[in-house]
Parts: sequence; structure tokens; C-alpha cells
Amino acid sequence: MTGFRRRNTRRSLVVSLVVLLGLTVGVASLGAQAQAPAATTAQTATAAATTQVATAPAVEPTTFKPFSFLDPSSNFTNVERIALFVVLAIAVCGLLYALMLVGQVRKADQGTKKMQEIAQAVREGANAYLGAQFTKIAPLIVILAIILYFTASSPNPWFHWGRSVCFIIGAGFSWTVGFVGMRLATQGNLRVAAAARHSYGDALQLGYRTGTITGMLTDGLGLLGGTIIFMTFGESAYEALLGFGFGGTLLALFMRVGGGIYTKAADVGADLVGKIEKDIPEDDPRNAATIADNVGDNVGDCAGMAADIFESYEVTIVAAMILGLATFGHIGVMFPLLVRGIGVLGSIISTYTVRAKADDTSDVALKNVHRGFWIGSVISIVGFSILGFFYLRPATPDVGASNWWANFGVAGLDLRPALTCFVGVVLAVVLNKVTSYYTHTTHAPVKSLTKACQTGHATNIIQGLAVGYESSVVNIIVIAIAIAISVFIYSGSNPLYVAYGVAMTGIGMLTLTGNTISMDVFGPVADNANGIGEMGYDKDEMEKEKPGSYKRARQILADLDAVGNTTKAETKGIAVGSAVIAAVSLFSSFIAVLAMGSEALIGQMNMTQYADIAGKLSVATPIVIIGILIGGSVPWLFSSMLLRAVGRAAYLIVKECRVQFLDKEIWAGTKKPDYARVVGICTQTAQGELIGPALLAVLAPVLVGFLLGPYALGGFLMGAVLAGQLLAVFQSNAGGAWDNAKKSIEDGLYGGKGSEAHKAAVTGDTVGDPLKDTAGPAINPLLKVMNMVSLLVLVLVLKFGVTQTEQSVPYGWILGLVIGLASLAAILWAVVHSKKESPEMIEAEKMLEAKANQA
Amino acid sequence: MTGFRRRNTRRSLVVSLVVLLGLTVGVASLGAQAQAPAATTAQTATAAATTQVATAPAVEPTTFKPFSFLDPSSNFTNVERIALFVVLAIAVCGLLYALMLVGQVRKADQGTKKMQEIAQAVREGANAYLGAQFTKIAPLIVILAIILYFTASSPNPWFHWGRSVCFIIGAGFSWTVGFVGMRLATQGNLRVAAAARHSYGDALQLGYRTGTITGMLTDGLGLLGGTIIFMTFGESAYEALLGFGFGGTLLALFMRVGGGIYTKAADVGADLVGKIEKDIPEDDPRNAATIADNVGDNVGDCAGMAADIFESYEVTIVAAMILGLATFGHIGVMFPLLVRGIGVLGSIISTYTVRAKADDTSDVALKNVHRGFWIGSVISIVGFSILGFFYLRPATPDVGASNWWANFGVAGLDLRPALTCFVGVVLAVVLNKVTSYYTHTTHAPVKSLTKACQTGHATNIIQGLAVGYESSVVNIIVIAIAIAISVFIYSGSNPLYVAYGVAMTGIGMLTLTGNTISMDVFGPVADNANGIGEMGYDKDEMEKEKPGSYKRARQILADLDAVGNTTKAETKGIAVGSAVIAAVSLFSSFIAVLAMGSEALIGQMNMTQYADIAGKLSVATPIVIIGILIGGSVPWLFSSMLLRAVGRAAYLIVKECRVQFLDKEIWAGTKKPDYARVVGICTQTAQGELIGPALLAVLAPVLVGFLLGPYALGGFLMGAVLAGQLLAVFQSNAGGAWDNAKKSIEDGLYGGKGSEAHKAAVTGDTVGDPLKDTAGPAINPLLKVMNMVSLLVLVLVLKFGVTQTEQSVPYGWILGLVIGLASLAAILWAVVHSKKESPEMIEAEKMLEAKANQA
Repeated sequence: MTGFRRRNTRRSLVVSLVVLLGLTVGVASLGAQAQAPAATTAQTATAAATTQVATAPAVEPTTFKPFSFLDPSSNFTNVERIALFVVLAIAVCGLLYALMLVGQVRKADQGTKKMQEIAQAVREGANAYLGAQFTKIAPLIVILAIILYFTASSPNPWFHWGRSVCFIIGAGFSWTVGFVGMRLATQGNLRVAAAARHSYGDALQLGYRTGTITGMLTDGLGLLGGTIIFMTFGESAYEALLGFGFGGTLLALFMRVGGGIYTKAADVGADLVGKIEKDIPEDDPRNAATIADNVGDNVGDCAGMAADIFESYEVTIVAAMILGLATFGHIGVMFPLLVRGIGVLGSIISTYTVRAKADDTSDVALKNVHRGFWIGSVISIVGFSILGFFYLRPATPDVGASNWWANFGVAGLDLRPALTCFVGVVLAVVLNKVTSYYTHTTHAPVKSLTKACQTGHATNIIQGLAVGYESSVVNIIVIAIAIAISVFIYSGSNPLYVAYGVAMTGIGMLTLTGNTISMDVFGPVADNANGIGEMGYDKDEMEKEKPGSYKRARQILADLDAVGNTTKAETKGIAVGSAVIAAVSLFSSFIAVLAMGSEALIGQMNMTQYADIAGKLSVATPIVIIGILIGGSVPWLFSSMLLRAVGRAAYLIVKECRVQFLDKEIWAGTKKPDYARVVGICTQTAQGELIGPALLAVLAPVLVGFLLGPYALGGFLMGAVLAGQLLAVFQSNAGGAWDNAKKSIEDGLYGGKGSEAHKAAVTGDTVGDPLKDTAGPAINPLLKVMNMVSLLVLVLVLKFGVTQTEQSVPYGWILGLVIGLASLAAILWAVVHSKKESPEMIEAEKMLEAKANQA
Repeated sequence: MTGFRRRNTRRSLVVSLVVLLGLTVGVASLGAQAQAPAATTAQTATAAATTQVATAPAVEPTTFKPFSFLDPSSNFTNVERIALFVVLAIAVCGLLYALMLVGQVRKADQGTKKMQEIAQAVREGANAYLGAQFTKIAPLIVILAIILYFTASSPNPWFHWGRSVCFIIGAGFSWTVGFVGMRLATQGNLRVAAAARHSYGDALQLGYRTGTITGMLTDGLGLLGGTIIFMTFGESAYEALLGFGFGGTLLALFMRVGGGIYTKAADVGADLVGKIEKDIPEDDPRNAATIADNVGDNVGDCAGMAADIFESYEVTIVAAMILGLATFGHIGVMFPLLVRGIGVLGSIISTYTVRAKADDTSDVALKNVHRGFWIGSVISIVGFSILGFFYLRPATPDVGASNWWANFGVAGLDLRPALTCFVGVVLAVVLNKVTSYYTHTTHAPVKSLTKACQTGHATNIIQGLAVGYESSVVNIIVIAIAIAISVFIYSGSNPLYVAYGVAMTGIGMLTLTGNTISMDVFGPVADNANGIGEMGYDKDEMEKEKPGSYKRARQILADLDAVGNTTKAETKGIAVGSAVIAAVSLFSSFIAVLAMGSEALIGQMNMTQYADIAGKLSVATPIVIIGILIGGSVPWLFSSMLLRAVGRAAYLIVKECRVQFLDKEIWAGTKKPDYARVVGICTQTAQGELIGPALLAVLAPVLVGFLLGPYALGGFLMGAVLAGQLLAVFQSNAGGAWDNAKKSIEDGLYGGKGSEAHKAAVTGDTVGDPLKDTAGPAINPLLKVMNMVSLLVLVLVLKFGVTQTEQSVPYGWILGLVIGLASLAAILWAVVHSKKESPEMIEAEKMLEAKANQA
């Protein structure tokens, strides 16, 4: 009970902090509102003057009208209006395609009752987890939506509502993608296991299509959201898009972090109590933690990853639309939406081509999955090239458009957005290949690990570190080259165009999100199917029906599992890479807001203003350097907290399993252990443990912004991106390589299972587990959340920051100080909390010590 | 023989690359010379005009006169002239004090013949290593000195010679510190072991004083060099200082990297062949690698660390003098020299107070060592405060001097340089404490590792990663706070003053270098003394003389070893921290050169020029971001290369030991193995393996500068500092914590030696070894070398860089392209080479495979 009471204390602490922050921010913005009108009147006057002098339509926040693109007097052409509806239709098509696949999967054969029972237990656990998470997160989302309403800087209520509502929609979409993806995965795994009894092709197809459902949901909802927001807000979509992006990002953080802790806590806990204490095999049904372990795969790899990529999909379109408006105007916004539309079509066609014959093997399957990706790429590239040729003809051409690669001799053409998009597609392919090189068993890096296993635990770990470091370097260099090419394509143009180029690279990179997620989710589905086959197949029955069919079915499932591991690993490089690209492109929005002092005015920024502010974000300025140093430390602290959280959660599970083992019937195997209790503990502890890292992610930029000022905040973002990218890829790839080194040895290399080399490989795999499934991938949403929070608080920082010498609100800095210090206190609490040992850990340690002293 | 031939091929490749680079750079600068006169005439004219209009003495490179400070017409006061000679005298005093201590150590009792034999073997090995390294490095130093002669941009031959000669002096001093330190350590260890037979106090004092010799050598030579250069070149010391700093830094890189590879190759190789293959204990005299293992401690921890800290000492004074000239003029240069002088006095007094009584214990010893540091700190702080009060009264006060903390109400006083110095002293103390907290057995982090050892290898590793990550965060935050305070102290002043403040923080941080190195070198001396006691004491003889004396002597040595481990670990934080501080302060020299286009003109820079260039180094500029990403990747690649190098070198040793084991007499223990052969292999392979990482360190900034331009180079430096600091501290502290966790368990915790927990702890220690002794500390000189190279090539980059649109030399960019591509080729070669398996590795692996297949 003390544990529960403690946890309640913690929760109330967190709630009070959130409320405190909410209140201060709320009051702050009311103060800001009071000051706003005067400024606004002046702005409107200037805007009006501009309209009279030039014909360019200045944004007039006070006279905003929703859906103005339909208005005949608006500057949208009819073709553009139709195109917007076409994009909307494509988004709906994507969702309908997903629905169709749901039908296909649902109606497939569900196998025997025993198989269904196992699948049922896993499904219930997974649902319980997401249900519990929903009840915890929903109130937080509501509170944040209210805060966001008050923090929007525009004087027009439409924008306040827009930001709040879009935030809720973004969060809802992200949650839906994760929830539905996981739910379907827990249904698909059973069907795959059932299909494998008859046909390789059917099993592959079912597994891949289960993944595709989540993929198309991501595509469809992402495109739908972006298009509707643009239709509603037109050229003033900035604030709504920011809300939409933040909602998706925040949910992704929760699902990634919570899922990551859940999956590894269950895994490590099951291992600790089973293998180390009781000396029983990994999947022994007497171990109460086994089902939780299987649930974890779905929670972490399906829900977490899907929400994560959805977020990347959302944030890149947000960045591209914001920058598109500021550069190419309509064309700049329409083009990314249209490219996304083409990508969705490409995904629909290409994912449907992935199939195999009844007697095919693993090689064919992998080749077909990859062929699907290539088909999709070709469709997309051809599609957006044609589109670009006809559509990319801006009325007032930019100076850089005169380069030969921008127009290929065709007057008025500006193909540069299409070119950068192409760079993005290539970047995605290269990142896939790099990740595959460093983590797949057939290449040198993993082979070097298996060799190192022969000389012991330590040499395997050292080699893994070396491989992980190196892979991180290759990844970041590839990304740097892609950015360099985008910059080169826009050489001669102003910085906002260059940033738009980088954003379009992000759009290109995630064009085939449908295929990417299909490949990713296929991993856990095949993994679980293999587990169901192992536990649920009735060997005698199958052999009676058709001799050799049991062995063949098991072989099919093992092959699919291996294929799934490969495809899943390949997609990780894209997820982290997209965080860097999104961060780099969003950076210019950051500067734009900084230059204009308000989000509503960024459309009116001129280049002198931009250059002036950009110049202050110099790496030569000490305050920026301080920001860089602090920003760089956050991903490291975050990873450290997550690694500890996994350890602490695992001990809770150890304790529960021990109690259940005391029941003699369970130990004898005559009574089924209470799997649900362990699942419940995992669920609860994962929720509790995510509070600390989430507080760090959300409040670190708030702290830096209010206490050290906007320039430190800019440096902070850059430092976080650099350190985060390096650490994330290192952790993911080292973990992946250790995992596959273990698999290689288990396949019979160097003595196979049970050999000394195998023990060393298991150590590597266990070390790699929390790195690749918890700490590494969580850095992706961390970076994006920090980016979004920085953009959201920036206007308030400019008004209330401690370092602001010109205070628009008298004594406003006191508010800034309070907010900053409250954030600091919350982060310190989170850090201290992350280092605390739970009573369960202390108890478990005492038992182990007593045991050691006896021996 | 193939191995040797291969190595020769490699060497010739490297030599030809260096020559190629040298030639291109040489030709380039000749081209530049040809262009120079025109510009210079104009400059001289301007300078002359300035002299006539304003009274401020402009630098006139063409009319330079050495030792002009003695000239009555110079603007030095008599007090300043005397002060300079006083500083020189203090430097000489430091060296004399070191000489006196050498006498004390030499004349101490040398113990029995058996003890002397063992010490002799270690000493010979260590000398052989440094001798071999000298013959390899000397030609390179000569080649580089010639290149540096040609790359100096000033038209006056004095500066060309100054830079070349100072480079050689810097390199020579660095080598001397390392060489003498190691030589003395290999003599001191024997005397400590001998003294321990009679008195705890004598043993402690001898060990500590052996360390102090190296410490005072560092202090003395560092101060001597800086002072003489300033006396010679006066206000035009920039180029000579840069040469001096680069020489020291480059040698430190070689000694750190070579030493790091040597020590861990011997260690891991001895372990692999002894424990894993032959199942014999760690220090079994039949194992031919044992002496090499002991030699390694001296090579890595004494020579490497001493050269490394010498370099920090040098680079911080270089930064402070360059910036001091540009801000406070004479006072700005004299003050850091005087502070250093006071620090040397403080070190002399305080190190001499460290002593203990014959029957004291480990606690007293540690307390006394720490008391020595405190005494030194107090002397320094009091000293530079008094000095500051009388001396810091600039003729033309800066605007920021009016702040109350700058003058405390005394008109004309500007205490800010002294205040930032004080911040530095505090920073050093805090970094010591932080490192101690994370790596010492009595604190929570190491305790958490020992606990984790109970649940296995993997949990120990994971916990170690979490602890290492966190320690890195704390370190960087502490440094960020120190920088922030320095910035605050100079608030209101222009950026060069702020940079000077940061540089003075570095001066303060390294004020007590004498004590720091004493503490550091004491570690390996005590460690080796313990080894000599273990192998060389004659138990029967000692017990006959005085019963119980053997046990007491062994206990004394074990205690001293533990004290040495603690003091050694504590100093590591300072070494890395100083790299960040130096980098941040040198950054403004980088901008100054960029702004003026030539090193000779930086004294004439105005603030508009500075701000203009600083603004272009914005984190919002894509080319700077690309630089940041590339820069951040270098420390990771460098670490990866070093980890692999250790593995490869270890295999060579395994092979040699195997061959020697085939000799039946050696295996039976009747014949002494050929220790020298293993020592020779270690020496040779460490030299060979350092080529790759050294090429990366020297050429990465050349590559970025010439191909991507000066702004990318600026970003590159910042990215490298951030990523490097985080990775270095993580690696050092995680390694230290694992080491001490093993020690805790070996002291009897959780089952002690031989228990399962102990096995897990050994794995952690083995993983940590190359991290804390090779990869981690090497990042420190890496960062400084990259900084120095960037400053050195910057002028050439401005003339020949591919991105420079205004080419002062027609088609100069072709040269830049060639240099850039040659650098790229060399780095790629180094990377490929670092991944290659040596024939010995392949052979060893085959044997292991065969063994596994048999089993």
C-alpha cells in the first residue's frame, strides 16, 4: 500500500505543478491580451496601408473568415479549389482502403480454440494498457487545450479556438493510429498463425496487410487533418497547424515512452525472475510475466512506433505548409499536400502488390516487400514530377528560379520543390539501407559482434558500442549531405526558401509512410504469430491431417518472424532522421516568430528582419552556446531516466511473480498464473514512470526560454537535435545489432544455444533491449515535442522572459521568473524521482543480498 | 612478415598524403605571398594613418622588433617589465623545485634486488615506447614546422619563424613533460614499494612527490614558454602562441591516443590469452604480456595524461593572451601570466605540505592530499585578489567596468578578470567533486552498479550507461553555469571581453595544475608500487626482521593504491572541461581572423566587423547546421576507431603469447618468457594504430574548411565541442564507475571474488577499460587539435576555399578543392583501415571457431 500512497503523492505533485504552470501561463496571456489591442490597431493600420500600396494581400487577423478559399474574391484559382477537394478525397480513399483491409483481416481464419485463447489474453492486456493510458492522458489533454487557447497570440477568437481544437484533433488522431494499429495487430497475429498452417503467401499477405491498415490510417488521417486545417484557415493556418502538430507529438511521446517502458519492463522482469532466480526457460507458462511480455511487443512496437511516425508525418507537413506560405504562397502550401496525396495513392497501389505464393520462402518475401517500396517510390516520383511540371509555375518567380536545374529551360517553371522532394525519397531509401547494413545478420557489423561473442561478454559489448557509434556517424553524415543538396538546390534564394527546401525533403522522406509503417508493424505481428504458433499449434492434430505440415507451418512462421525483424529495423532510421529534418525546417519558423514578435505577423516578415534575428543566434554568442550545451544534455538525461525507469519497473514485476510462485499449484504447473495482475502492474508502472521524462521534455524548453531568453532557446534546440540524433541512432542500431548477433548464434553459429558465445550474445541483447526499444526511439518524439513547445511558448517568452529588457507588461519578468523556476523545480523533482529506488527494488535487493551471503 | 610489409605500405601511404598536403599548402601559401605585398602596402598605409590620428599604437608587422618591451619608447611601464621577469623567475623556481624533488626521489631506498628487477623491466618497456614514438613523430614535427612556416600570413619573416619554432618548442615541452613524468614514475614506484616496508608517511610522500615532479614541470615549462613568447613578440604574439599551442596539442594527441591504445591493448590481450584461453590468473608470470600490461599503466596514465594537461595549460594561456591583448591591452596579457605565476607558487607551497605519519591510514592520506589542494586554492585566490586590486586599473576603462562588482566602489578598478579567475577555481573544485561522486565507491552511483551486478552482466552494463549518461549531463550543466557566470560578470561589455572572461575562467580552472597532476600521477605510481610489492617483497625475510611487517607493508600499498585511484579519477573532469572552456574562448579568435582576413590584423578589428561575422555563424544558417552535424559526428567516429584499434592490437598480443606458450619450459614456469617482445609489439602497434585517428583529427577541419567554407567550419567546431564533451565524460565516468564497482565487490561485497556478481563486475570493468583509458580521455586533445588546426588553416581557407566567391588568387579554389579532396581521401582511408581485420585477428578467430566447433 505504501507504494500506492507514494504514487498518489507523486501524482498530486505533478497535477499541482501542471495547474500552477497553467495558471501562470493563463494569467500571463490575459495580461498580454490586455496589451494587445493597441499593438494590433497599429498593425492593422500598417497592413491596410500595405494593401493599398501593393496588391499583395496582407493577413488581417481581425477580419478573418473561415473557408475563405471558396470565396470568389479570394486569390485561389478554381483549379486549386478542385485540387484541395481531390486531396481530401485521396485522404478518404486511404482511410477506406484501410477499412477494406480491416475486413479482409477480420474475416480470415482464426485457427484453433487454444490459439484464440492465447491471442485473447494478449489482446486484452494491450487494450487494458491503452485504456488506462487514455484515462490518464485525456484530462491532461483537456488542461493543455485550455492553456493553448489562452496562449495563442492573435486577437481573433477563431485562432484561439483553432489552436485548441486542432491540438485535440492532432492528439486524437495520433492516439487513434496507435490504438487501432495495436488492436489490429493483436487480431492479425492470430490470423497469420492460422494461415501459416496452409500457405506461406497467405500468411505473409495477412501480416503485411495488418501493418498496412495502420500505415494507411496514418497517411489518411495525417492528410485529412492538414487539408481540412488549410481549407478552414487558409493563409492564416499557422497557429492551428502548430496546435495540430503539438497534439500529435505529445501523444506520440506518451505512447513511445510509456510503451517503451512497458515492453522492456515486462521483458526484463520476466527474464530476471525466470532465468536468474528460478532457472526456468524464457516462455515458461508458469511465469506470470510471459503474457505481459507479449503484450509489450504490441504496446511498444505497434502503438508507440505508429504514433511516432504519424507525428513525423504531421510535423513535416506542418513545417512545409508554414514555410510554403511564407515563400511560394498558395503553390507552396498546395504542393506538399498534393505530393502527400500522390504518396497515398502510391502506397495504396504498392502495398497491394505485396504477396507471395503458397510455397515461397523468406528470400522471396523480403524481396517482395522491398519491391513494394520501390514501386511506391517510382509512382510517387513520377507523380510529383508530372505534377511539378504543370503546377510549379509561380506568378512572381524567385531569384533562384533562374538556375538551370530549377526550370530546365522552360520559362516560368520552378521545379525546385519537386527536386527537394526527390532528395527526400532518396534519403529515405539510403537511411533504410544504412540501418539495414548495421543491424542485419548478413553484413559485416553484426558478424563482427558474433565473432566478438567468442571472446566473452565484454568484447561483445565493446564491439557493439563501436558499431553503434559508427552507424550514428554514417546516419548523421547522410542527413547532412541531404540537407546540403537541398541548400544547393536553393542556392541564390533567401533563407526561408532554403528552409522550405529542407522541409520538402522531409515531405519526400515520408511520402511512402504507408509502406514504411506496413514494414514496421509487420515485425511485431509476425513475432507474435510465431509465439502463438509455438504455444498454440496442436502438433498431433496437424500431423494427422497432413504429415509434415506442423514442421512446415512452424518454419513459415520462423521465416516471417525473421523477415519482420529486418523490415522493422530498416524503418527506424527514417523515424529519427525525420526529427532532424523537421527540426531544421521548423527552425526558420522559430526565427520568423522571434523577428515579428507574434505568430500572426510572420507572413509580413521581410528578409532584413529575418537576417537580423538569425544573426543573433550565432554560435559565437555565449548565451547561445550555453543554450547549446544545455540542449545537448537533455537527450542524455532523458535516456538515463528511461534506462533507470525500465530497471525500476522490472523489479515490480519480479516481486509479483515471486508472490505467485509461492502458490504451490502454480509452481507445479497445475494452476494458471494470474497473468492479468502482471499486465496490470506493467500498465500502471509504465504510466507512472513516463511522468518524469514527459515533464523533462515539455518543461526544459520552457525553463530555458523564460530564464535564459529566446536566443538561448534557439541554441538549446540546435544542441538537442545534434546530441539527440547521435545518441538515438547509436542506441537503436547498437541494440539492433546485438539482437541480431544473438539470433545468428541461436541459428547455430559458434556453438549455438547454450554455448559460452551464446551467453555473451544474450548479455549483448539484454543490454541492447532498453536501448533500442525504450531510450533510442523515444528521443525522436522528445526532439519534436521540444521543438513544438519552443514555438508555442516563444511569444510568451518575448513578453515575460527574464532576459527581455523591454517589458511590454510592467514587471512581466516576475511571471517569467515564476514559470521558469516552477519548471526547474518540476524537472529537478523528475530527476530525483528517476533515481529513487522503489520499495520493491530495495526489498528485492535485500533478498538477493541475503541469498549471496548464504552462498 | 606480411603484417610488416602491410604496415610499411600503410606508412608510405600516409607519408605521401602528408607530403601531398604539405606541398599543396606550401604552393598555396607561396601564391598567397605573391599576392600579399599589394595588400600589405595598403594596410601599412592605413596603419600609419591610424597612428597619426589616434595615439593607440597599431600593429605594424613590417617594422616588428623582437623584445621591444625593453625599449624605453614602448608602452610598457617599468613595473610591467619587472613583473615579466618575476614571472619568468617563478617559472624557473617551479622547474628547480621539480629538480629538487627528483633528487629526493632518486636518493630514496630502492628495496631488494628482486623488486629492482621488476621495476627495471617496466622502466625499460616504457622507455622503449617513448623512444619509438619519438623517432616516428620527430620527422612529422619537422615537416609540419616547415608547412607552418609557409602558412603564416604575415609578410614579416619573424612571424614565420616564430610560428615554426614555437610549434617545435610547444611539441618539445609537451613531449618532455610526458617523457620525464613517465620516467620518474617508473623510478618512483620502486621507491614507494621500498618505503612502504617501514612507513606509511614516507611511502605516501614519495609517491605524491613523484607526481609533483611532473606537475611542476608542466607548470614551469608552460609558464616559461608563454612568458618568453610574450617577451619576444609583445603585442604581435598571436602567431607564435598559436604555433606553441598547436605543438603541445598535437603531441598530447599522439601521446594520449598512442598511450591509450598501448595500455588497453596490453591489458585486454593479457586477459584474453590468460583468462579465456589458458585459464591462468591475471598476473601469472608465465604470461608474456604481464610486463607490457604494467608498462601500459605508465604510458597511458602518466605520459598521456601529463601531456594532455600540459596542453590544456598551454592552450588556455594562449587563449587568454590573445584575447587579453585585444581587450585590456598589456594588462590583459600580463594578468593571466601573473595569475599563473601565483598558481605555481601556490602549488610549490601546497604540494610540499602533503605528508602523513608512519602509522597513518588511507583516510588521513586522502584528507591530506585534498588539504593540499585547498591550501593551494586559498593561496591562489588570495594572491590574485591582492594582485588584481593593485594591478587591474586600466587606463581607458571599458563600459562594463562601471558595474558594482567590477570596482566595488573604487574608481578606476576593474576586478572582473580576477572574478572570472575565481569562477574557474570554483569550477575546478566542483568538477572534481562531481567526478568523485560518480566514480567513487562511497557514493550512490557506484553502489547502484554493485547492486546491479547481482542480477547479471547486462544489468550492470545498463546501469553503468545510465550513470555515465547522467554524469555527463551534470558535468556539462556545471560548465554551462560557469560560462553563464563569466558572461554575467562581463554583461554590458562587447563580445571580446566576454570571451576573455571565459578564457580567464580557464586560467582559474588550471591554476593548480601542479596539484592536479600530482594527484593524477600518484595513481599509476601507487598502482605499480602495489604490483612491485606483490611480486617483489620477500615475505620470509621481512617477517624474520620484524613480525607482521610484511602484512603491514602490503596493507600500506593497497591503501595507497586505493587513494591513488580516487585522486586520479577526480582530475579527469578538469581535463575534459578545460577543452570546452578553451574551445569557447578560442572561438572569438576564430571570428576575429575571419573578420579581418588575416591573423596580423586582429588587433585592429572593431565591433561592427566582429558582429557582422558572428552573425553569419548563425545556427539558423543551413551551412552552419551542416557543419554542426559533421562536427558532432567526429568524436563519435574517433571513439569508434579507438575502440576497434584496441581490439585489433590486443589480438596481436594474443598471438605472440600463444607462440611463447608453445615453449614447454615457459609453460612449466622454468623459463622466463620474452617480455620484451610483447612490449615491442605493443609499442609498434600503438604507433601504427594512432595514424588513423590522428589523420581524422588533423584533416577533418581541413576538409570542412576548404570544401564547405569558413562558416561551416565554425559550426563544425561547436558541434564537435558539444558532442565531444558529452561523449568524453560519459565514457570516462562510466568506465571509472565500473572499475570501482568491481573493486567494491573484490573487497568482499555480494560474495566477493569468484562470485557471480564478481563475474558481472569484471565484464563491466573490461567494457569500461577502453572507454575510460582510451576513447574517453582522447577526446580532450581531439577537440583542441581540431580547434588549433581550424585557426591555422582559416587564412588559407579564406584564400582558397571552394566556397569563397571572391578569389584573391585566380582559380585558387582549385587548390582548395585538391586539399579538401585529399583530406577526404585520407579520412576515408583511415576509416576503412580502422575497420579492417588484421591477419592476426583473422587467424585468432579461426582458431576460436575451430575450438567452438570441437566443443
